[in-house]
Amino acid sequence: MSDTSPAPLPHAAPERSTTRLEAFSDGVFAIAITLLVLEIRLPPEAEIEHLGGLSAALLALWPSYAGYATSFVTVGIMWANHHEVIRLMSRVDHGLMVWNLLLLMAISFTPFPTAVMAEHLPQPGWDRNVAVAFYCGSFTLTAFFYNLLWRHAARGRRLIHADVSDARVRAITRAYAPGTVIYGLATATALVSVPVALALVAGLAVFYILPRRGALTA
Amino acid sequence: MSDTSPAPLPHAAPERSTTRLEAFSDGVFAIAITLLVLEIRLPPEAEIEHLGGLSAALLALWPSYAGYATSFVTVGIMWANHHEVIRLMSRVDHGLMVWNLLLLMAISFTPFPTAVMAEHLPQPGWDRNVAVAFYCGSFTLTAFFYNLLWRHAARGRRLIHADVSDARVRAITRAYAPGTVIYGLATATALVSVPVALALVAGLAVFYILPRRGALTA
Amino acid sequence: MSDTSPAPLPHAAPERSTTRLEAFSDGVFAIAITLLVLEIRLPPEAEIEHLGGLSAALLALWPSYAGYATSFVTVGIMWANHHEVIRLMSRVDHGLMVWNLLLLMAISFTPFPTAVMAEHLPQPGWDRNVAVAFYCGSFTLTAFFYNLLWRHAARGRRLIHADVSDARVRAITRAYAPGTVIYGLATATALVSVPVALALVAGLAVFYILPRRGALTA
Amino acid sequence: MSDTSPAPLPHAAPERSTTRLEAFSDGVFAIAITLLVLEIRLPPEAEIEHLGGLSAALLALWPSYAGYATSFVTVGIMWANHHEVIRLMSRVDHGLMVWNLLLLMAISFTPFPTAVMAEHLPQPGWDRNVAVAFYCGSFTLTAFFYNLLWRHAARGRRLIHADVSDARVRAITRAYAPGTVIYGLATATALVSVPVALALVAGLAVFYILPRRGALTA
Repeated sequence: MSDTSPAPLPHAAPERSTTRLEAFSDGVFAIAITLLVLEIRLPPEAEIEHLGGLSAALLALWPSYAGYATSFVTVGIMWANHHEVIRLMSRVDHGLMVWNLLLLMAISFTPFPTAVMAEHLPQPGWDRNVAVAFYCGSFTLTAFFYNLLWRHAARGRRLIHADVSDARVRAITRAYAPGTVIYGLATATALVSVPVALALVAGLAVFYILPRRGALTA
Repeated sequence: MSDTSPAPLPHAAPERSTTRLEAFSDGVFAIAITLLVLEIRLPPEAEIEHLGGLSAALLALWPSYAGYATSFVTVGIMWANHHEVIRLMSRVDHGLMVWNLLLLMAISFTPFPTAVMAEHLPQPGWDRNVAVAFYCGSFTLTAFFYNLLWRHAARGRRLIHADVSDARVRAITRAYAPGTVIYGLATATALVSVPVALALVAGLAVFYILPRRGALTA
Repeated sequence: MSDTSPAPLPHAAPERSTTRLEAFSDGVFAIAITLLVLEIRLPPEAEIEHLGGLSAALLALWPSYAGYATSFVTVGIMWANHHEVIRLMSRVDHGLMVWNLLLLMAISFTPFPTAVMAEHLPQPGWDRNVAVAFYCGSFTLTAFFYNLLWRHAARGRRLIHADVSDARVRAITRAYAPGTVIYGLATATALVSVPVALALVAGLAVFYILPRRGALTA
Repeated sequence: MSDTSPAPLPHAAPERSTTRLEAFSDGVFAIAITLLVLEIRLPPEAEIEHLGGLSAALLALWPSYAGYATSFVTVGIMWANHHEVIRLMSRVDHGLMVWNLLLLMAISFTPFPTAVMAEHLPQPGWDRNVAVAFYCGSFTLTAFFYNLLWRHAARGRRLIHADVSDARVRAITRAYAPGTVIYGLATATALVSVPVALALVAGLAVFYILPRRGALTA
């Protein structure tokens, strides 16, 4: 709390508190999640008529809605996990700043692969496989940076609070490790079967929001 | 306040405080409300000339201004209500995180149905009914998630602060219940009469901002 | 501070503190100011070549840069003033919430008139006058809601902190009153002379950022 | 902390604390960094086919990814530096508000030159030099306002906290001075050699995120 404390000793502390890192990260998560809607757009008027009117055009946007919901829930879960993990840290060092910045860079990128996937989902063919692999690949990168951020903080309990038990630290390391693998698997699977890849990503999101399970309550 | 407190005991608490949930939600509300303006766009130069110049073109955008104002006030009221309701809670659990995320997903979606409605409002015909129903339907979903969020917190006073009276909890449950019904009614009405549906939605917004009434001061 | 205080008495207070109103408003100001850049766009490749290359095209965007800078500084000053004025209040009531929401609605609208003005500034003719009048008119509305917000708080010192002197309250009322008039005057002037109208708006922005003068330090 | 303190004395203080300046600035940094993704767009369907499908089109966007990453890391480092520098100040005066506003104006502008550069990077010719010079020039302006902000605060220790040593102040002045020069050099170099200019900008970003060096840990 040094940087918002009325007591004027912020710069006496050699390392920084996590408060402003959290505030900045919260802002980036909130904006990335809200920008997703800008990628949902009606086709031009001529195509709406060709589709048979507005109601058909709105229904034909189902891949955009599905992509919006999946990305929104996935990034929302990542925000909740970020919150949990930063809470366990007593200080911030240079490495954490850098890994956090790279994680936010991957999170902020989400609207683009979401739009690419939504645009190509209705058209069968190789481009559809590529689009879904690009989407899953973007989450793979995010999960990868998440693991690096956590491992940087957890190595030798570098940034971990004295109150947190070793068992808890190990439990989180174990809980996060599969994320990169599952998203990586979905990326490879997308090149073979789009439905299986999407089931993996959507299943992971649903798994985390089911009552009392997984990382949201970690 | 555990996660911003200088005393290093955040992770001792088994449940989280509401502080960061509020901060993240505030961010999403503020961004969703501000993105609304991006959906207001001048037609191409050729159409401006066809309309008789810029002043006519700016006037012809009245449905965009009306949609902007209605959505801005409606989302603003929802933010104020969100604020009020979260204040009554002493802690956050997994279910609240999830319902809140789904509520934010509905709130963030608002700019798209607002744009769809504004674009089709000036053109009489079935598409106009569909566009307004889509707009009202989006608020129905938002009101629905609001009720689920509140009921999750209020059931058996699960997350409610000990200081809040039972009468107050019941009063809020009663105050929120009609929202979903009225927006749902407006959605159905839009398929028959656009003016009546819009009067319901705009009337609800005006009702809430009239002096000393309704949810803003709940 | 009731809603962020660790002491669990937020809902005992019949009125709310200004903390979350400020946080939400800060978010809207910050987003509105940052969205301005999205309205600056290069023309299509063919027009860039017609203009004589990229450097000429970038120079031809000067009205966009001027509009960006003027709107950025003007909204930035309004943020600083908002900050000052809210600091003088000890509580928030329903009316303040509503006037603040309407003020934010006018602030968030700024990117649209900025883009309209920038697009029409290089083309002499009546549309140019209309565009600048629309731009100035948008600031007139903002200044108008500012005055209503302040007058609501100041009437009979309704929301004003006990520590603030009556002289200070009157000084602020006097300092804000000319804003609406000057912007209104610029709006009317734009229909006759674009340069004089722009000089008024830009002059007001420069006046406020000159050392030690005006509302930024009010 | 006067403006968030429960003790009702905010307006007794003649100068303001840095809290809300930081919150507003954090918001602008977070939004500017997140808007960068909106400038990454797939070409129209016809061009995707011409390029040989989606995978080729996604690969052909490499200048957009490179620009996104470079701008993201550069603005992220500027945020971290901003954080460090404001922490050393005990109060905010009018001049700091103004320099900070001009700095934020330059930061918020970043998405536009990033898009201009990404669009012209694959096409050899003079426009490519111009685009990269425009990009580097925008960071030169940012670094310039940074130096002005810091020098305003540091002159005669005007806003500097009593705890901060003179040696520390001089060290920061020395550390920031080269920024404007290096970015200015990159701007000029871009007109002669695009690769050298980009190596300077990307090298500066990499230098700052290397372990335990430079301003991130200043």
